[in-house]
Amino acid sequence: MAEAKHATARPLANGEIRIDFQTDPSRYRHWKLKVDGEVATLLMDVDEKAGLFEGYDLKLNSYDLGVDIELADAIERLRFEHPQVRVVVLRSAKPRVFSAGANIRMLAGATHAHKVNFCKFTNETRNGLEDLSENSGVKSICAINGTAAGGGYELALATDHIMLIDDGSAAVSLPELPLLAVLPGTGGLTRVSDKRKVRRDHADVFCTTEEGVKGKRAVEWRLVDDVVPGSKFDAAIAARAEEFAAKSTRSGAANGIALTPLKRGFAADGVAYGSLRVEFQRAERIATITLHGPKTPPPASADAMVALGADFWPLQLARELDDVILNIRLNELEVAAIVFKSAGDPAQVLAYDAFLDANRDHWLAREIRHLWKRVLKRVDLTSRSLVTLIEPGSCFAGTLAELIFASDRAYMLAPSPAGERGHDGDNKPPATIALADVNFGPYPMVNGVTRLACRFLADPGDVDRAKAARGKMLDAEAAQKLGLITFALDDIDWDDEVRVFLEERASFSPDGLTGLEANLRFAGPETMESKIFARLTAWQNWIFQRPNAIGEEGALKRYGTGQKPVFDMRRV
Amino acid sequence: MAEAKHATARPLANGEIRIDFQTDPSRYRHWKLKVDGEVATLLMDVDEKAGLFEGYDLKLNSYDLGVDIELADAIERLRFEHPQVRVVVLRSAKPRVFSAGANIRMLAGATHAHKVNFCKFTNETRNGLEDLSENSGVKSICAINGTAAGGGYELALATDHIMLIDDGSAAVSLPELPLLAVLPGTGGLTRVSDKRKVRRDHADVFCTTEEGVKGKRAVEWRLVDDVVPGSKFDAAIAARAEEFAAKSTRSGAANGIALTPLKRGFAADGVAYGSLRVEFQRAERIATITLHGPKTPPPASADAMVALGADFWPLQLARELDDVILNIRLNELEVAAIVFKSAGDPAQVLAYDAFLDANRDHWLAREIRHLWKRVLKRVDLTSRSLVTLIEPGSCFAGTLAELIFASDRAYMLAPSPAGERGHDGDNKPPATIALADVNFGPYPMVNGVTRLACRFLADPGDVDRAKAARGKMLDAEAAQKLGLITFALDDIDWDDEVRVFLEERASFSPDGLTGLEANLRFAGPETMESKIFARLTAWQNWIFQRPNAIGEEGALKRYGTGQKPVFDMRRV
Repeated sequence: MAEAKHATARPLANGEIRIDFQTDPSRYRHWKLKVDGEVATLLMDVDEKAGLFEGYDLKLNSYDLGVDIELADAIERLRFEHPQVRVVVLRSAKPRVFSAGANIRMLAGATHAHKVNFCKFTNETRNGLEDLSENSGVKSICAINGTAAGGGYELALATDHIMLIDDGSAAVSLPELPLLAVLPGTGGLTRVSDKRKVRRDHADVFCTTEEGVKGKRAVEWRLVDDVVPGSKFDAAIAARAEEFAAKSTRSGAANGIALTPLKRGFAADGVAYGSLRVEFQRAERIATITLHGPKTPPPASADAMVALGADFWPLQLARELDDVILNIRLNELEVAAIVFKSAGDPAQVLAYDAFLDANRDHWLAREIRHLWKRVLKRVDLTSRSLVTLIEPGSCFAGTLAELIFASDRAYMLAPSPAGERGHDGDNKPPATIALADVNFGPYPMVNGVTRLACRFLADPGDVDRAKAARGKMLDAEAAQKLGLITFALDDIDWDDEVRVFLEERASFSPDGLTGLEANLRFAGPETMESKIFARLTAWQNWIFQRPNAIGEEGALKRYGTGQKPVFDMRRV
Repeated sequence: MAEAKHATARPLANGEIRIDFQTDPSRYRHWKLKVDGEVATLLMDVDEKAGLFEGYDLKLNSYDLGVDIELADAIERLRFEHPQVRVVVLRSAKPRVFSAGANIRMLAGATHAHKVNFCKFTNETRNGLEDLSENSGVKSICAINGTAAGGGYELALATDHIMLIDDGSAAVSLPELPLLAVLPGTGGLTRVSDKRKVRRDHADVFCTTEEGVKGKRAVEWRLVDDVVPGSKFDAAIAARAEEFAAKSTRSGAANGIALTPLKRGFAADGVAYGSLRVEFQRAERIATITLHGPKTPPPASADAMVALGADFWPLQLARELDDVILNIRLNELEVAAIVFKSAGDPAQVLAYDAFLDANRDHWLAREIRHLWKRVLKRVDLTSRSLVTLIEPGSCFAGTLAELIFASDRAYMLAPSPAGERGHDGDNKPPATIALADVNFGPYPMVNGVTRLACRFLADPGDVDRAKAARGKMLDAEAAQKLGLITFALDDIDWDDEVRVFLEERASFSPDGLTGLEANLRFAGPETMESKIFARLTAWQNWIFQRPNAIGEEGALKRYGTGQKPVFDMRRV
């Protein structure tokens, strides 16, 4: 089986053929994570010679996906390795510049797919920073010591509190439109209007002014929270950090757990993790992810869970699923469909969910649940067709059952008519799925509702009926009756139906499927988070296809060449 | 001044150089509007030789913009000319086909701008049909006698009740993705998931199945409301119509008013209407719309208003504004900015708003308010920069003040310092604006909130402060203080600031501005209506740029040629 085609338009600077999302602080090139009691500092100090791809320098704390992978990693470590931290301060180590935003040369040379996935990941990272504040009580402060332009200011927007130095030149800006003919698409427009609630005409002026806004007007227009003279900047930051730490509700332990490196065995046609494996059938454009249930019962106590650390099954599996989804998104561009399978004892999966429920006030149990929530959101937002195949021996129960509801379709093998042999001639008991409390609250989608509530918009009574079935092992007939699966098929139809579906999926236009799934997966309400991925991202993706931005005479290509872009002046 | 460049990629079939949105039933080629007491029938009978453009036949009740212009006109006439109608039945005059949807040859040959604006207008028409039901009590039934494919089914989705004939072959379908590699973008995906609340996996199956769904499954999956045997179809429709008529709350009069043809004087550089004129400075890419206040006080009674009919100032102006906005959208593609000006007595404008308030239970007053609501939504959704210039002699009060809040920015001329001469040396009193009750409820945006609520998301107290100022003539300083305008400028700065703004706007990438404005104008909540224009439309526009759909080997181009499309199989 062939290796994936080179996923990127230009070589990775490290000589690898795939982008890796795993890192740790000892390998950071761009960030320094310092922890001092309750206050952590994330110091942005981008190594301009350490870009992810060849062909550009990361000047002025500009960033690419590699920089953001480190940021995402650091935020995870604040959650799991530093439970005592109550405030995180984002600062720059460069003089007079916080961040110049996404690197323009990188964007100008990136494939469309890379641009889209880069933006998606950076959006998820910034949403994760907000989740850290809202749900884990780690408040964030952005201390802007100079220029915060474009993506630099968008990062600031994801924090709780923006402090701008008042030195006559430091400014925040979103110059994407006037400079580059693209949008502030990493949440910028949405956070300006929906989080900072900047008045729309002020936002219009701000987003069309290259040099941005500084000083008193930046506060009046709600773009920053404080402007502080340079001489008082450090003291003001320290005071705010202390104030926020005092108000934080985080009740973490003094000692965290280590997020040890994932165990990964790479082969040409797949990756084997500790509790999961992925197999690529590249000719068929299929990636099959098989999740393994726990091998042992849950630990006896919360302390035992802490002692297990990163080897604790739910944590291990969540980290692995996250890694494999990101790997497919960025490196396996031709995969049309992700097939979820599982293997294990559903009762054991439910036992782990019950264990986490029982310890819901324990900091680690809570962080694991929030991690699953974010990983499942990442699945929802993955622009590949998603299908769950529920077969004998599988363990789609509780948390793992969410993958059924995250999928575009789910097929479940029904027991063969009496007397016939089972699927593949094996002797496994018939496939079952099971629901638990965890399917009814802790894992909202980006639109703020649970997958089951979103599934059963037509009749909330269906949610109640599903809830009443918690804990029961549901066979195909029962699952079908409750509306939890799409099709229950017996052994005679199974192989053909599944094969035809996967072939069909691989034959459709990938773009059409992306748009279809982006609409059908998110019925019901919208939130700021979902607006970022729908309204803002969809418009940005459109612009990323338009010659005015990406054509040879477009603004992205001509930026920095001294030549003005040439625009098609027709509005659409 | 030059005529607008030919706005379309291919010749209009009628030999004209611009698409005209004005029509009347005597000129319909595609629809028949029959009124029989409380029940109206809209019979779709598309003349396949009467396409808007040359180069395609409108077979099988497929449609283009010309067909939809007639539909939109017919719906307006149901509101104003037939106030006694309580139910409208949409049917086809063709045997065994309701509608094959948007014409594929038309789409394949249309410019990107035409496709986008065609979809926007058809969406507005379908939203208007829903508004007719929700706010005017005219319930709608779609009677599907055969194939309802793509846009044909999307039209059905906009009605209150879908009846499908049960003849073993009649089906509803959304085959856009499998056949054409595009989305059901005329509200289809959003209405399937958010209005019909079809379960997402069923929707996935439905939208990827060319032949669609029929019979019992169509009801079970919530795609239609009734399936009826052919022998009972007409009787069942009549019974439903009677049932809905009995439940309707419409309390219209027996006699409506005639929507007489708009008075329009076309010149090369503009159009003069009865209460409005538009001037094009095409070299500068500016369209200036000047709205004229009423020449006379409001009529003495509701009967006098009815007697005035289409000449009643608020109705006349709303129809004219609608026509000019549509003209700019479809025919004046290079216009970057629409400048709103007004001339008249603001007190008289307020008097008309007070008259409509006083007659709010009168059917005609209500329809006029709903028309303004829809026209203002059309303004919000127009992808041109919008600016209001408030000068001495203007009358931005009440309803007309909504244009200030619909604009991306508003500039107001402040009185010159004492002793200096006024603006342009004239002797008009200083510019004022005024608010009225109408600014605080009757004109919600597509996202369900008023423009002022959306403007003042940060502090609802600002809405209260604005409300407290109702009826007052607010000068620039007062308007500025209340946050109602962007900049108050005196005579010294006015010309330069406005000129620089308009030049800047004309220099930016039109696409970037479209995306920026689509985000900044719609802060706050989303509704089904706003989801159609944001999530669905933005994704569809993206797909309309992708080679898999529109390239020489793409599905739209290859449809019907016997050649299969060739897709780039990378997902983004």
